[in-house]
Amino acid sequence: MSLQQASMNADPNLIDLRYRMRHSAAHVMAEAVVKLFPEAQIAIGPPTEDGFYYDFEVSRPFAPEDLEAIEALMRETITADRPFAGEELARSAALERFSDQKFKVEIISDLPEDEQITVWSHQSWEDLCRGGHVDSTGKIGAFKLLSVAGAYWRGDEKREMLQRIYGTAWESQEALDDFLERVAEAERRDHRRVGRELDLFFFDPISPASPFFLPKGTIVLNGLIDYVKELYVKYGYQEVTTPQIFNTDLWKQSGHYDNYLENMYMMNVDDREYGVKPMNCPAHAMLYAANTHSYRELPIRYADFGRLHRYERSGVTHGLMRVRTFSQDDAHIFCTLDQIAQEVNSFIAMLDEAYTLLGFDRMRLALSLRPEKRVGTDEMWDRAEAALSQVLDASGREYGIEPGEGAFYGPKIDFFVPDALGREWQLGTVQLDFSLPERFDLHYAAEDGTLQRPVVIHRAMLGSLERFMGVLIEHLAGALPVWLSPVQATVIPIADRHIEFGQTVVDKLRAAGVRADVDDGNDRMNAKIRAAQQRKIPYMLVVGDREQEAGQVAVRERAGGNLGAVDVDEFVTRIAREVADRA
Amino acid sequence: MSLQQASMNADPNLIDLRYRMRHSAAHVMAEAVVKLFPEAQIAIGPPTEDGFYYDFEVSRPFAPEDLEAIEALMRETITADRPFAGEELARSAALERFSDQKFKVEIISDLPEDEQITVWSHQSWEDLCRGGHVDSTGKIGAFKLLSVAGAYWRGDEKREMLQRIYGTAWESQEALDDFLERVAEAERRDHRRVGRELDLFFFDPISPASPFFLPKGTIVLNGLIDYVKELYVKYGYQEVTTPQIFNTDLWKQSGHYDNYLENMYMMNVDDREYGVKPMNCPAHAMLYAANTHSYRELPIRYADFGRLHRYERSGVTHGLMRVRTFSQDDAHIFCTLDQIAQEVNSFIAMLDEAYTLLGFDRMRLALSLRPEKRVGTDEMWDRAEAALSQVLDASGREYGIEPGEGAFYGPKIDFFVPDALGREWQLGTVQLDFSLPERFDLHYAAEDGTLQRPVVIHRAMLGSLERFMGVLIEHLAGALPVWLSPVQATVIPIADRHIEFGQTVVDKLRAAGVRADVDDGNDRMNAKIRAAQQRKIPYMLVVGDREQEAGQVAVRERAGGNLGAVDVDEFVTRIAREVADRA
Repeated sequence: MSLQQASMNADPNLIDLRYRMRHSAAHVMAEAVVKLFPEAQIAIGPPTEDGFYYDFEVSRPFAPEDLEAIEALMRETITADRPFAGEELARSAALERFSDQKFKVEIISDLPEDEQITVWSHQSWEDLCRGGHVDSTGKIGAFKLLSVAGAYWRGDEKREMLQRIYGTAWESQEALDDFLERVAEAERRDHRRVGRELDLFFFDPISPASPFFLPKGTIVLNGLIDYVKELYVKYGYQEVTTPQIFNTDLWKQSGHYDNYLENMYMMNVDDREYGVKPMNCPAHAMLYAANTHSYRELPIRYADFGRLHRYERSGVTHGLMRVRTFSQDDAHIFCTLDQIAQEVNSFIAMLDEAYTLLGFDRMRLALSLRPEKRVGTDEMWDRAEAALSQVLDASGREYGIEPGEGAFYGPKIDFFVPDALGREWQLGTVQLDFSLPERFDLHYAAEDGTLQRPVVIHRAMLGSLERFMGVLIEHLAGALPVWLSPVQATVIPIADRHIEFGQTVVDKLRAAGVRADVDDGNDRMNAKIRAAQQRKIPYMLVVGDREQEAGQVAVRERAGGNLGAVDVDEFVTRIAREVADRA
Repeated sequence: MSLQQASMNADPNLIDLRYRMRHSAAHVMAEAVVKLFPEAQIAIGPPTEDGFYYDFEVSRPFAPEDLEAIEALMRETITADRPFAGEELARSAALERFSDQKFKVEIISDLPEDEQITVWSHQSWEDLCRGGHVDSTGKIGAFKLLSVAGAYWRGDEKREMLQRIYGTAWESQEALDDFLERVAEAERRDHRRVGRELDLFFFDPISPASPFFLPKGTIVLNGLIDYVKELYVKYGYQEVTTPQIFNTDLWKQSGHYDNYLENMYMMNVDDREYGVKPMNCPAHAMLYAANTHSYRELPIRYADFGRLHRYERSGVTHGLMRVRTFSQDDAHIFCTLDQIAQEVNSFIAMLDEAYTLLGFDRMRLALSLRPEKRVGTDEMWDRAEAALSQVLDASGREYGIEPGEGAFYGPKIDFFVPDALGREWQLGTVQLDFSLPERFDLHYAAEDGTLQRPVVIHRAMLGSLERFMGVLIEHLAGALPVWLSPVQATVIPIADRHIEFGQTVVDKLRAAGVRADVDDGNDRMNAKIRAAQQRKIPYMLVVGDREQEAGQVAVRERAGGNLGAVDVDEFVTRIAREVADRA
């Protein structure tokens, strides 16, 4: 996962400087590669949010020693402090200048006839490039080459497989070190790694980008669902269960067939076309339409944890963060225009409660307003946007406004949270929809007896539960809160003669609904404690002669705290309450 | 749904007599139809478990008056008491005899050249038929024509649509009346009707044979799942969550591609073939194989409520009883051969606990033994069959033995329960599997350090949860136990001035986790009580002046019992305990 979000709040001047440094470093790197690999065909080398890369076609994969040699040559060019300068070329001249570089020739040939072609040089090297460089190579700052990966030319699986070298450059050695430390920490926290280490889930190409949740991962997933279900009772939602495969007539009616087909799994059954649902909204519209409704029944809030499937290209899927199948804490609220404000308010209150409990104590809100292409009358939009901004104003929260960024069917509020590494994640969303009720001809009997259209509010707090689990794992480095931990306490007998007593402790914990086990292996106590810490188990209960005699456990916390000896029954009561309260 | 199971335990002689009466009645009915509709083309007319039918091609659909006229003509033939007699015919003679009956000609033409062709006659009518009649039409007994439905010739949607008349015949008027009463009761209990009346679920052709569960239906479905999950904690199961769409390589490895393809939903993704899972077993084998296992970890019990999809022809789907998508209380146990007995024993204990709680207090067991086509050595089968029969013998339960009826991969025990109408349903199953561990090359490290194959046990208690819900609804005529009822108590204010007090009662009930509402409509008390009874709400809490003053509710049960006035807090405690205990 990129660390791009971490730098999003930085000073615009600094962002611009980094852009130019990294762009310049990419040129200097390409120069070094061509010196060492004269046969190299060079492709493109843009700056990115975190650094830069360049793609090359070379006769063999780059080795770690190659990166060192390339870095050494780059340092020479940086020390030489060569100035960057741009030059305009005619198309034919450009084609001739790069005639031995097939990718450059392809790029130039694809440009419109009248496109101005520029080349930027730092004396010892020149490249096809629109510019955006530091004044001279000496201003590139602190840099480092990071890794090599394969990449298809133009991202097309049918074209050449190239070698991509990733690097980064920063304004100071300190900033570079900070970044490298953040990268290393992100790797340690990588949910795919933690998921494997903690036996939570794994992936297999037999079902691409579709997680297999082991028992411990399922405990976490169900823990999140059970918690959301409790909130649903409190906030007046009703859970429903809907099919997964629908005739395309439904997808035509909902608009997915015209707007979302490339992300859908389609099949033929009995010679008719069917699609696997990527969203629950059309099925919820059908549920609503299955009965007549009076204004007295509204708002109706249908919640659905149904499994969704969305096709994503294999190049963009990423662990739990971007999968092809997932469940959301998804719900649709059918209400009157007058009820929008109270519904959104209530949703934000619920979301606040959930985020706080789950350890995300800050959030950023963005209100997206009417886009050019939209459905519904201006009066409806006025009213809906006013409802959303009034709710936000009344909440006293800061929020950004993004004109034109609303969905075509209505304005929305998105909720972003920063994680422990400073990366920002969009989790919740609440979207007003004027289109769905039209498309499905939904109505309710108003107080005056007339039939009126309800509004639909799409909303999710955690969003994809799979993705949320990934975010939570990285935010907490796998150390889930006690109530979500697959194993909440492990008993560590000091010697074999303490195992039996340890098992009675486990039995008491389990009887109180606490997930507990006993480490009856042959390791010494300290090794068992380290193992339990690696398993991120919140409580380690050491039992030796003294504890056994006194009916106690010596309680250690996973972070290293030592709570001393506690009576078994007292500890059981304490942890059971902690679990029940989701403390 | 046929009532066939109701007659399964009857005396074999009686079954034979009914077969002959019904077969004869079908002939007599066809005779009457042709008298009234001389242009009729007659198709086939077999006896069934419940009666008989005959298919006709006629120029217009039969009307109720037609059935009466047909019955009147049939009565004449029965009174005339004409003897049945058979005659053998050569193929050519048979073709000539039925030359104006295209379906009969088709049947005769499709028979093997050397097949003996017989015609049975009762003097005024003759039909192509293998025989099996009463001696004379006077012995047909009490009969009745029941209904008319469309049916394709040979069940083929591409062939002629015929008109099928259903009838029934019994040895006495009393037996016929009994049957008709059972049919009427089954119609009253029909889960599709009850499901609509109680707002539990509905179906829509946009997703054929796939239930849409409304909030109340989802409460029932989740209630069953939550209960099974509690049993799983008690009996040592671990829940897992697996993908739904897998590359065909998996289905080839599991054997589904060769043996189950026609029931699978297939699609193409990225130019490769994928199938939607009809069963969880292959995914569970992958979960098992994702880690190495020691004998000390076994048995491992993976439970999965994952949504399954199985294509069924639209002709055979039926309400919740036979759907195209469902979840099972499915689990797979990975264990050693030595552990089979204890695992099956433990499963039967759990199943017994569940069935008793859910109101099925009798069950029939059937042990199915090795079929001719099978995998595994004779020694393995000896051991596995012995394990199953020892468990059954030790349980002291009666069970039937069905030689040759086991699955190709291992022997099994099926569990049948009779419902309130005497119909028998197969719910639970436990199946040993020697094949899956081979196909997925599963193993565990035995105590002696060698790698051994585990056995896999497939087992389900309730089976398809959707189907179980249908069975339960029909068994209980919709009157679900309190803990499963979507609304557990409804407050009935006698006048408007009692609504406010009624609402405080509802608030107290809800705070105690009881699903309650208040009927604040304008109907009179008795009408509200009747409505609540129709909604199958277990408790009706009437509140008037007296109750309001005393802080009480007058409690009525849905079956009609009157529990008198009870203090609100006492009632809340009582019902909350009843719900928690699943009493």
